Amino acid sequence: MDKIPVGILGATGMVGQRFIQLLENHPWFEITEIAASERSAKRRYENVMVSRWKLETPIPEKIRKMVLKECQPNLDCKLVFSALDSSVAGPIEENFAKAGYIVSSNSKNHRMDDDVPLLIPEVNSEHLDSIVYQKKKNDSKGFIVTNPNCSTIGLVLGIAPLHKRYGIDRIIVTTMQALSGAGYPGVASMDIIDNVIPFISGEEEKVETEPLKILGDYKNGKFHFADIKISASCNRVNVKDGHLEAVSLSLIEKASIDDLVSTLKNFNPLNGLNLPFSPTKPIVVLDEKDRPQPRFDRERDKGMVCTIGRIRRCPILDYKFYILTHNTIRGAAGAAILNAEYLKIKGFLEN
Amino acid sequence: MDKIPVGILGATGMVGQRFIQLLENHPWFEITEIAASERSAKRRYENVMVSRWKLETPIPEKIRKMVLKECQPNLDCKLVFSALDSSVAGPIEENFAKAGYIVSSNSKNHRMDDDVPLLIPEVNSEHLDSIVYQKKKNDSKGFIVTNPNCSTIGLVLGIAPLHKRYGIDRIIVTTMQALSGAGYPGVASMDIIDNVIPFISGEEEKVETEPLKILGDYKNGKFHFADIKISASCNRVNVKDGHLEAVSLSLIEKASIDDLVSTLKNFNPLNGLNLPFSPTKPIVVLDEKDRPQPRFDRERDKGMVCTIGRIRRCPILDYKFYILTHNTIRGAAGAAILNAEYLKIKGFLEN
Amino acid sequence: MDKIPVGILGATGMVGQRFIQLLENHPWFEITEIAASERSAKRRYENVMVSRWKLETPIPEKIRKMVLKECQPNLDCKLVFSALDSSVAGPIEENFAKAGYIVSSNSKNHRMDDDVPLLIPEVNSEHLDSIVYQKKKNDSKGFIVTNPNCSTIGLVLGIAPLHKRYGIDRIIVTTMQALSGAGYPGVASMDIIDNVIPFISGEEEKVETEPLKILGDYKNGKFHFADIKISASCNRVNVKDGHLEAVSLSLIEKASIDDLVSTLKNFNPLNGLNLPFSPTKPIVVLDEKDRPQPRFDRERDKGMVCTIGRIRRCPILDYKFYILTHNTIRGAAGAAILNAEYLKIKGFLEN
Amino acid sequence: MDKIPVGILGATGMVGQRFIQLLENHPWFEITEIAASERSAKRRYENVMVSRWKLETPIPEKIRKMVLKECQPNLDCKLVFSALDSSVAGPIEENFAKAGYIVSSNSKNHRMDDDVPLLIPEVNSEHLDSIVYQKKKNDSKGFIVTNPNCSTIGLVLGIAPLHKRYGIDRIIVTTMQALSGAGYPGVASMDIIDNVIPFISGEEEKVETEPLKILGDYKNGKFHFADIKISASCNRVNVKDGHLEAVSLSLIEKASIDDLVSTLKNFNPLNGLNLPFSPTKPIVVLDEKDRPQPRFDRERDKGMVCTIGRIRRCPILDYKFYILTHNTIRGAAGAAILNAEYLKIKGFLEN
Repeated sequence: MDKIPVGILGATGMVGQRFIQLLENHPWFEITEIAASERSAKRRYENVMVSRWKLETPIPEKIRKMVLKECQPNLDCKLVFSALDSSVAGPIEENFAKAGYIVSSNSKNHRMDDDVPLLIPEVNSEHLDSIVYQKKKNDSKGFIVTNPNCSTIGLVLGIAPLHKRYGIDRIIVTTMQALSGAGYPGVASMDIIDNVIPFISGEEEKVETEPLKILGDYKNGKFHFADIKISASCNRVNVKDGHLEAVSLSLIEKASIDDLVSTLKNFNPLNGLNLPFSPTKPIVVLDEKDRPQPRFDRERDKGMVCTIGRIRRCPILDYKFYILTHNTIRGAAGAAILNAEYLKIKGFLEN
Repeated sequence: MDKIPVGILGATGMVGQRFIQLLENHPWFEITEIAASERSAKRRYENVMVSRWKLETPIPEKIRKMVLKECQPNLDCKLVFSALDSSVAGPIEENFAKAGYIVSSNSKNHRMDDDVPLLIPEVNSEHLDSIVYQKKKNDSKGFIVTNPNCSTIGLVLGIAPLHKRYGIDRIIVTTMQALSGAGYPGVASMDIIDNVIPFISGEEEKVETEPLKILGDYKNGKFHFADIKISASCNRVNVKDGHLEAVSLSLIEKASIDDLVSTLKNFNPLNGLNLPFSPTKPIVVLDEKDRPQPRFDRERDKGMVCTIGRIRRCPILDYKFYILTHNTIRGAAGAAILNAEYLKIKGFLEN
Repeated sequence: MDKIPVGILGATGMVGQRFIQLLENHPWFEITEIAASERSAKRRYENVMVSRWKLETPIPEKIRKMVLKECQPNLDCKLVFSALDSSVAGPIEENFAKAGYIVSSNSKNHRMDDDVPLLIPEVNSEHLDSIVYQKKKNDSKGFIVTNPNCSTIGLVLGIAPLHKRYGIDRIIVTTMQALSGAGYPGVASMDIIDNVIPFISGEEEKVETEPLKILGDYKNGKFHFADIKISASCNRVNVKDGHLEAVSLSLIEKASIDDLVSTLKNFNPLNGLNLPFSPTKPIVVLDEKDRPQPRFDRERDKGMVCTIGRIRRCPILDYKFYILTHNTIRGAAGAAILNAEYLKIKGFLEN
Repeated sequence: MDKIPVGILGATGMVGQRFIQLLENHPWFEITEIAASERSAKRRYENVMVSRWKLETPIPEKIRKMVLKECQPNLDCKLVFSALDSSVAGPIEENFAKAGYIVSSNSKNHRMDDDVPLLIPEVNSEHLDSIVYQKKKNDSKGFIVTNPNCSTIGLVLGIAPLHKRYGIDRIIVTTMQALSGAGYPGVASMDIIDNVIPFISGEEEKVETEPLKILGDYKNGKFHFADIKISASCNRVNVKDGHLEAVSLSLIEKASIDDLVSTLKNFNPLNGLNLPFSPTKPIVVLDEKDRPQPRFDRERDKGMVCTIGRIRRCPILDYKFYILTHNTIRGAAGAAILNAEYLKIKGFLEN
């Protein structure tokens, strides 16, 4: 079987690197194009990336020699993964969609658009219905699908089964987010050594807003946001990868802790689809009293699971617990790849 | 004026070291006795502390040569500061109180006793009325006064003026606590490098309980706990000193953000008393969008203030903000010293 | 083909855990016994290891349920890997050898014995001749083989090809060693945050001594130490895994930098043996100006290579460069496994 | 007595901030001017420094409101401290000197000039004779004095007494340098978490060269470099402040360890001068087996001492030991201030 040719937009940044790492040996997709800013274009990837490749595994051999192109919709591929910086992602992604490309984007620019799915395949696959409208608007076969912000995705994936089963109306979440989430060079070492930074620009707004779209409905050509109130406090901590979130929430319908645990453990909507980036189960519930922890739990099941621990009563809302997800895998590149896999299996990549 | 002779119980641990450091050159108190476990007793402090002194300033010269005694109530001093481990603090502190010593304790053992003040001088000085009952029970001039847990004190000091003015009924707090709070050797480096530990044994219970006593009343010989619900999630982060807390709370009476800020800034109940360890004002409110931060704010005003920042509306409770306090100064040794200073100024150290 | 049954002595410590992790799915060896101190014996591994398993991958399923035994030579296996603490390793390992077991030990106790090989298969396989004498002395089929200290092995493996080709007579080495080398709980976080510790007990002595045995000859039933002077300064840095060493050395025979590089790159004495834990080539030479770095290079080729970079003239000795090795894989458990594989391929595990 | 008005060139960077912090309340100097790049000029310091002030103490009140000027020689002061980036320091410092200002510079640009002193007052005060030539060349009362690189100064100050007494001919030094040495934003957190970087651009060259000028003579209008060979390996470690150096060296004249220790301890050439930034003694020798350590020893005596520990025989050169100095105090701003104080006491600031 021939692999589907894909391109990477923004191939030199932290998330771009993750796309390249994760797509090496992907059974369905093959990177045929890499693109970046004008400054890097026309140069070999390995030359551009001297001292800039920041992953612990080496640059895949095949990619080393590839020449970066500009982010123009003349790439020889069918689908592009976008890891573009938000300062440029908006119009570039639109150009690709209008030119007939399928765009699986990690950028924030189009997430809240009223005809763009903000997709977590386990959670809101019915939002893909919006693609019809998008194609029509663009008068193109191309379209954009986005994945949520790296803090949002852990939160939403972890609470989605509870919301579906019992209803959730209030969430208070405090995040402890990893350095890799800020890109490169990102956080200066002088800012984070022996420190915590209790502020991440724009992050609390995203965490308080994106879940409402994801957990809402798509009906009659419109997104209807979920009626949930969220309060977020976002912090940067001295951890390489893995966003940890302390969550308290209120359920609309009563449930015991055992109910919660079994609902979380049984959640597996993609079961049987055999998507390469789908974890065995999207949620892992830990029993240990001091878990999840970023260093020990972020890599579970290819970094694609949401790990939950310390589920206990909250004296104010109903329950509280911790959620951990790998921010540059399940929270970024891995999410966009899973989205693309889901699009394929559902026939969205055909003709 | 002669200084008041004081002793340090548990002089070799992290908090004991802080007592020794902070009391060097204290204008009112002079360390005349240092005591520790039988194992260390009868040895010179400097010899016992080889590779164990963990503060950035050297052991004070005078203390170096002092010989450690056992924690028996035969010390030549009037007041003892207790930095004892909770596994032994209970009976030892009682023995001292019964033998006529005044005990200013940082240990948790007697904090919740029904005739022992859990004191923050700016907040609940009227709780000292319980000392009369304590003395009577002990049939002694001696008594015990305790200071709160290191996470509790920051929270309570920061919210006390709001509670007094507007009333608080619900608090959700997520702490990011420093390594020094776990003592020495405390947290293993292999556990915290590139990591966060979302669990501290017994901590959430203390943070959910101690404030109710402190913010409650003492009337008719009994403590009446405040009617506040608190939900805490406590985490250990890779920071040396300084506990940072993300707080959301509900006010009983309405107030604007400006009201909150001015209430916090004007709070200064010890004004005019000139206690050596009292900060200029107990609460500092920062305007910067990304503060307080442990490394940059923990040492403000001798490490004795509570720094508050990012005061903003909470979509679920009423307001949210951050609180930072130095956990081994305002959160431990400095708190016990301030308590002792307050006792002195109020005449409790006399005869 | 049936796998060879092996046991792990000291299965609960950091190196013991690595043995268990690395031997999962080993093509030749199968763990049939795990043993530890009396305190842990007779308990299931998963129960003993709550909050003690410190690797990022989970405990292998098969091992979880196994019951720890005491370190007595009545285990049902042919070979034991020893990760015992040096306070007890000496007599226990002897007991096993005398009882007919083959002992592949990471402990320091017998490394310098005059009939025990201190083995790096790529470097001094002829030292296995000493086993005959050892068996005779023990009047047993059993024997002990040791691997070097975690800092020694990187140094010796990296310089061995140069020593063989040009001769080395002086080495000055400064190590920057990872936290995992100190075991668990090992280094306290309060000692290493924002710090370097310029002392590791006993380490400089090992680094100055062990290489002389390894790089020496075994002739006429005796070890003849290499005539090299080594000066070591050993430091603990805030890194999880990977010992980095800054090395300066003098060559007896002249050589250019190109000579050095090609000698290092061509070194591959185990080529063709297909040992499971043997890296493709034992030495990797990097061209980047700022490498090797612990986080980025320690995992290369299963953590079994010695990575060398920044080879340049030394104004005082002849050359200087950096060496990096993974201290708990190539520097401990992986080394002992490779030793056992080499013993097997050479027939030492038969009858 | 009126204070001497001084200016800070490059007042916004890390070293500039240290100048401002350290000069607050200086008994002789008063900051009357602060200058920076065109981009920051004409703006209030507090406004420019939002999120850029990176010291643990707040911006001095007086400086907050001061307006930054451009680095033009029209400042209202007599002496300027230069913390300029090396990309611009060269001509700017010359302009100031030619215009009659005295320039105490921390920048590297003029350090090796043949009429500019590279001054450590305790070591080579006679190099100030070169100022006469410099003034003549510039046809100005102004002149430039420089202090050494932050790694050089610790090394040279620590070995200078040994060199004077016994002669040194070979030094091998491996540095473990703090993050603050790279300025701000400097080292990315993603580069240094769980890592060491074995390369600092240009650093090894400085450490191998600058000491030769400092330890050489100034005679007949020329610098005569010391005849010492130095080999340096420079590393960046995850430490905020404090450069630690592992040093091995050869003495020309024999000396025992006791000789070394007493020579180091007795070294005090500025004794009696009462310079405000001069430490009690410039060198502190520690007895503890695991010291000096950056976090515990960098702040000794205002951060102005060189701390030495672990003096022991080197099997290859004669002795080895560790040196620690605070890189942004004794290694940068504090050094330049001490230089200026020395210039004052010696009459170089008059007319």
